[in-house]
Amino acid sequence: MNTSPGTAEAVAELCAALPQVVSTDPAVRAAASHDRSHHESAPPLAVITPTDTEQVSTALRICHRHRLPVVTRGSATGLEGGSNAFDGSVVLDLRAMDRIVAIHAADFDAVVQPGVMKSSLNAALDPHGLFFPGGPGVDASMGGMISTRASGTNAVRYGTMREQVLALTAVLADGRIIHTGTRARKSAAGYDLTHLLVGAEGTLAVITEATVKVYGKPDATAAMICSLDSISDATAVVQQALTREVPLARVELIDDITMGAINAWTGSEFVVAPTVIFEVTGSRLAVQENVELLGDLARSVGATGIRIATDPTEVAEIWSARAQVLPSTAALVPDARTWSTDVCVPISRLAECIALTQADVAETGILAPIVGHVGDGNFHLAIVLPPDDPEARERAGLVNERLIDRALSMGGTCTGEHGIGVGKVAALAREHHDALPVMQLIKDALDPRHILNPGVILTDPTTDRR
Amino acid sequence: MNTSPGTAEAVAELCAALPQVVSTDPAVRAAASHDRSHHESAPPLAVITPTDTEQVSTALRICHRHRLPVVTRGSATGLEGGSNAFDGSVVLDLRAMDRIVAIHAADFDAVVQPGVMKSSLNAALDPHGLFFPGGPGVDASMGGMISTRASGTNAVRYGTMREQVLALTAVLADGRIIHTGTRARKSAAGYDLTHLLVGAEGTLAVITEATVKVYGKPDATAAMICSLDSISDATAVVQQALTREVPLARVELIDDITMGAINAWTGSEFVVAPTVIFEVTGSRLAVQENVELLGDLARSVGATGIRIATDPTEVAEIWSARAQVLPSTAALVPDARTWSTDVCVPISRLAECIALTQADVAETGILAPIVGHVGDGNFHLAIVLPPDDPEARERAGLVNERLIDRALSMGGTCTGEHGIGVGKVAALAREHHDALPVMQLIKDALDPRHILNPGVILTDPTTDRR
Repeated sequence: MNTSPGTAEAVAELCAALPQVVSTDPAVRAAASHDRSHHESAPPLAVITPTDTEQVSTALRICHRHRLPVVTRGSATGLEGGSNAFDGSVVLDLRAMDRIVAIHAADFDAVVQPGVMKSSLNAALDPHGLFFPGGPGVDASMGGMISTRASGTNAVRYGTMREQVLALTAVLADGRIIHTGTRARKSAAGYDLTHLLVGAEGTLAVITEATVKVYGKPDATAAMICSLDSISDATAVVQQALTREVPLARVELIDDITMGAINAWTGSEFVVAPTVIFEVTGSRLAVQENVELLGDLARSVGATGIRIATDPTEVAEIWSARAQVLPSTAALVPDARTWSTDVCVPISRLAECIALTQADVAETGILAPIVGHVGDGNFHLAIVLPPDDPEARERAGLVNERLIDRALSMGGTCTGEHGIGVGKVAALAREHHDALPVMQLIKDALDPRHILNPGVILTDPTTDRR
Repeated sequence: MNTSPGTAEAVAELCAALPQVVSTDPAVRAAASHDRSHHESAPPLAVITPTDTEQVSTALRICHRHRLPVVTRGSATGLEGGSNAFDGSVVLDLRAMDRIVAIHAADFDAVVQPGVMKSSLNAALDPHGLFFPGGPGVDASMGGMISTRASGTNAVRYGTMREQVLALTAVLADGRIIHTGTRARKSAAGYDLTHLLVGAEGTLAVITEATVKVYGKPDATAAMICSLDSISDATAVVQQALTREVPLARVELIDDITMGAINAWTGSEFVVAPTVIFEVTGSRLAVQENVELLGDLARSVGATGIRIATDPTEVAEIWSARAQVLPSTAALVPDARTWSTDVCVPISRLAECIALTQADVAETGILAPIVGHVGDGNFHLAIVLPPDDPEARERAGLVNERLIDRALSMGGTCTGEHGIGVGKVAALAREHHDALPVMQLIKDALDPRHILNPGVILTDPTTDRR
């Protein structure tokens, strides 16, 4: 553990300045050391749990003066180690900043602190007839979702977190507080600092408040599930739906292995085949019209087992398949962990990319079911890692590297929604080799002492993190 | 004119390096000196009309070495002087880079050079059943629309240029070429340099290629026009439509003065009252259902003269009112120029903001009809400036400054879609006073010699521009 005199002095100054919210308790430090990924971590020197922007500012001023690295953390559901602590760092845990500051129903926006969970925001919006569509299936903190530019099943209709953020309050590395954007729906006022911070994974500033778009809840919802002969038939029907401008709210692909795992885990009796679940929302008439059109499109590519639901309970039952993907695949091997890959490619290349990847998975001999946000070209391998099998982990790593290169060669990206964290720093360098120096210039300008999540997104000379 | 030896040498080097595309012809220089705004300009020393990214890179390398300021220009339809040349600058005119590089119909994207006009892109997309919804009513170049984060009547449905851009090729101040984003629909890969350049008005890099989203053309379109007693009734009906999740494709407010001007200019016989035009698109059934709902909502706030059109010719006729706003208002005073303001506020404050502004206009004694993209909270005063009346121009300036401060006090922005240019540099400093140093850090990092559009967005010590 890093116990240099300068570091000890810095931690002491943090404790003195913010006695109520700084802890050096070993249990607290251990609990704040890692996210859900398989990447390495180490307990931080201290954990700061601020309750307002001013406290964040005070903490960062001290850390900046002492060059003490700060790892910012929300609900820590990240999958690439972006909030993993390391030896010699302190953790800024924003979960106590969980206040919904305002809901402006007439303006379709809400102002939240970063520790607000998506589920809490939606509970508060519900009485207004509003909801927040952003972020992943798992519940997560707003600050974390913004910082990783997260998305999920709703992105095909509502966009990613990039599209949801109107304005931010953020604290710079040296403690200065800035405000970006406004509550206006659009603005052409200078550099888009809001969207520079969205997806910056806490490496440029710490987000302490966000104004996000919220939406009216649709009148009606319908879901359709169907089985297809192949992944390429599945992407074909989605492409036709997009071309016909069917207003898809969600569209998810689940492969046959995963469907089998879901049946085994939940006792349900879904058909074990490549499966697509569609959701359309809107007025009752429009929903009826669109779901019938989807049925026609699916039948035209040979879909079977088409089931349409408009009753909310039945809709929820269809979606239960998707909700059980993670536990079901993890349960395929006792005590296994899962490792989720995350490439995104142009939709026209999706079927080919998945087919080549499935072949690679089979040849490499790992277990890796596939689910995909197929309307966006984004899919995940849920690689099942047996316990204590470093060799399987290594093979999985090679499959992931080849998958990333395959996606890049198709004009895609190494991460659709999980972010770079510490796990994809090398992949980012491959994806954006000529733009990487510009990212570094921006990092150096905004965080000249490299105290904010060093080693995340960009390599850092002072840390060696994986 | 700036004719220092260093400058003359720089221009000579440009001419030698790019003989086919550099001109010092006085007529060419004069023609490339200003946009459509009332802001001051001066002819540049030379005009460079590159045809590819490499030529842009060559030109910038030379300008960077000699610290020669470069003003980048597309179709020059800007309204804040963002592409106005000044004494001692050279102009980079990108109109010759007008190639549509690719249309990927299956992926709903197109790759364009910056000089491609929106109308040309739409003509090329039409046979594919696709269209590009971004940008203003006036035809403009893609590079200019991206660089000003432009929008227009379609933004309520499709978003602004911010939402349309997936990837960019850009040349840095020192001539290095970078690529940002990918053709994937979403990405969480590092800093969002794409959206840092969207809206940067050519001050951080020169955009030489863009990948933009395109959309399937809807099956059916309906328009509805109606007259209301007041602006606040007009915003009320729009708000209700948004709450009911009516998928508005466009919604425009035109005030009574403007409606009168349109009648006078075109000979049409529209009702002279605050007027709202709605457009809904989608499947035939959904359009029918939604336009009927809009009629009910309008009647509930006392709208009269409701006219609904589903036939394309009739739809176009209704929209002709909106298309004639600019020439009609300019024609209110012989030889007048118009000056378009551009604030955007949260929708709940729009009626109040407009009412206070109308009172100010009346009290100040200027002629300033109002049109607005009311679904976004964005509205324009089309201030009519009589010829040779500096006193009227000064009063107009004061109205604009008060309007900006009013919008900022309501949580809005000084510019919804026109950009900062040279005209709103002081307004930007008021709007983002605490974030302005961060914008300056980014400018300094990416353009350390301040050669790219100096004085645009941020003040520049080496130039004194208004």
